Amino acid sequence: MPIHIQEVIPRDGFQMEKKFIPTEDKINIINKISRTGVSKIEVTSFVSPKAVPQLSDAEEVAKNIERNKDVTYVGLVANLRGAERAMNADLDEINLVMSASASHNKKNVNKTHEESLEGFSKIAAHIKGSGIKINGTVATAFGCPFEGAISEKAVMGFIRKYIDLGMDSITLADTTGMANPSQIKRFAAEVKDYAGEIPLTLHLHDTRGMGLANLIAGMEAGVTRFDSAIGGIGGCPFAPGASGNICTEDVVHMFGEMGISHTADLDQLISISKELPDIIGRSDYPGQVVKAGKVSDLHEF
Amino acid sequence: MPIHIQEVIPRDGFQMEKKFIPTEDKINIINKISRTGVSKIEVTSFVSPKAVPQLSDAEEVAKNIERNKDVTYVGLVANLRGAERAMNADLDEINLVMSASASHNKKNVNKTHEESLEGFSKIAAHIKGSGIKINGTVATAFGCPFEGAISEKAVMGFIRKYIDLGMDSITLADTTGMANPSQIKRFAAEVKDYAGEIPLTLHLHDTRGMGLANLIAGMEAGVTRFDSAIGGIGGCPFAPGASGNICTEDVVHMFGEMGISHTADLDQLISISKELPDIIGRSDYPGQVVKAGKVSDLHEF
Repeated sequence: MPIHIQEVIPRDGFQMEKKFIPTEDKINIINKISRTGVSKIEVTSFVSPKAVPQLSDAEEVAKNIERNKDVTYVGLVANLRGAERAMNADLDEINLVMSASASHNKKNVNKTHEESLEGFSKIAAHIKGSGIKINGTVATAFGCPFEGAISEKAVMGFIRKYIDLGMDSITLADTTGMANPSQIKRFAAEVKDYAGEIPLTLHLHDTRGMGLANLIAGMEAGVTRFDSAIGGIGGCPFAPGASGNICTEDVVHMFGEMGISHTADLDQLISISKELPDIIGRSDYPGQVVKAGKVSDLHEF
Repeated sequence: MPIHIQEVIPRDGFQMEKKFIPTEDKINIINKISRTGVSKIEVTSFVSPKAVPQLSDAEEVAKNIERNKDVTYVGLVANLRGAERAMNADLDEINLVMSASASHNKKNVNKTHEESLEGFSKIAAHIKGSGIKINGTVATAFGCPFEGAISEKAVMGFIRKYIDLGMDSITLADTTGMANPSQIKRFAAEVKDYAGEIPLTLHLHDTRGMGLANLIAGMEAGVTRFDSAIGGIGGCPFAPGASGNICTEDVVHMFGEMGISHTADLDQLISISKELPDIIGRSDYPGQVVKAGKVSDLHEF
């Protein structure tokens, strides 16, 4: 089964950038990503502009990007109002996020688990019949920066709730890069079994250097959908200078070297990554293949 | 079986640094590394000071470091004269390096394979009975920046020659970070079978982000000895700005998270890594755990 590459730079990548990225630049990069063979693009977040000023242009971005019929366009949504905004912007899918950690959920969306799930229930009822799909993300699924280890039983319970609410797909997110390969290999396999036919995505960060090792562990657990961000940007506020999301072009380069089937065009992704300094105003992003070249880029003797 | 961490910062890490690192600083960091529970330290390189000016103080370093009886102190050696220098400096082991790629060997040591092997034969004869061990490294074993793919049959042939020459241990080096996890898992397992009782080390670089994924693949192939450099410094001249050796503290941190048995002290390694800016005069080294903290370093809510 081919691996699905799901690009999150417009949301999880850009949201951490301090300098406001012009709306036109966001639309432009999303249009380019649309042609690279990725399966999904998380294009923005319909949250309060006060909470995430960088994504205050959510509607304008979502309404003005070109649409490729082979790509699912996703918007992150925090409440019913956000879901309405995403519907009006004609997105294919909304992504609902709750942290497995109670304290991280409080910090991130200022809600208890009960409040989050109640909101999701209203959103699911509202969306029903619209044709828009819902993905449910369990954030901090492998560890929380405040609480440490997370109860796997609790994560399973939240997935059960998501499935009961009729969500179309599930994401396990290693929000602050705390997962290790053994944990991913074991727990992602358990969740995959439990979710059955419901597609499961792993959202991985490379915060402590384990990103691609975790990706391989996820594949070994049977996961075929992975979020990543061009350039490896993104990250969490607690680790300034650390790596962010796993880097799309590094992931796709590794798949190519390993002979793993996928539909993404590595050269186009590298080319987009090389444009990042003009977009985010800095060139110190974590992507390695952009710096080192592909394995197949030979040198003159 | 516990994993052996073999530290190469004093040789493969420092040799690429432009600013000369004072001899006293080299001795000081090696002494600190000696107390961290690593199995081996490659302390320097007995090559021409013209070729590697950074390591022109090889004798002074080797003769003045403290010795921990649980640590094997290694010197890289390029010819008979180098072997004599290493013997006089009372090292426990010499490391002989030949590239599997003919062109890389020519570029690196200006020798054909035949010339390298003839030199190794003389060195082995000279060393015999001294109690000093010999490790044979096959460099560019997974790919060459000039030639691309490397014949695995040729690599096996060189390993056969090393064993015939009486070498005590073997290293497969991914000198410029071209290996991928599938290749490592398959080929390292073949070499491990072939080498039998002869200890096998993997020397990995993180040039294209696959370093820790390759390490796990190597472990799955049964390898228990790995070279790494504190801070992840080192690297190759063709990839300026790219990551270098796999990063010791990131490796040891991952092992800890995975519950893999080893003898290295993570906190001491992190503490040494944090001193690197004072030693190498720059703070842009690739190590991630130094930037992000350990998974177990929780944050205040």
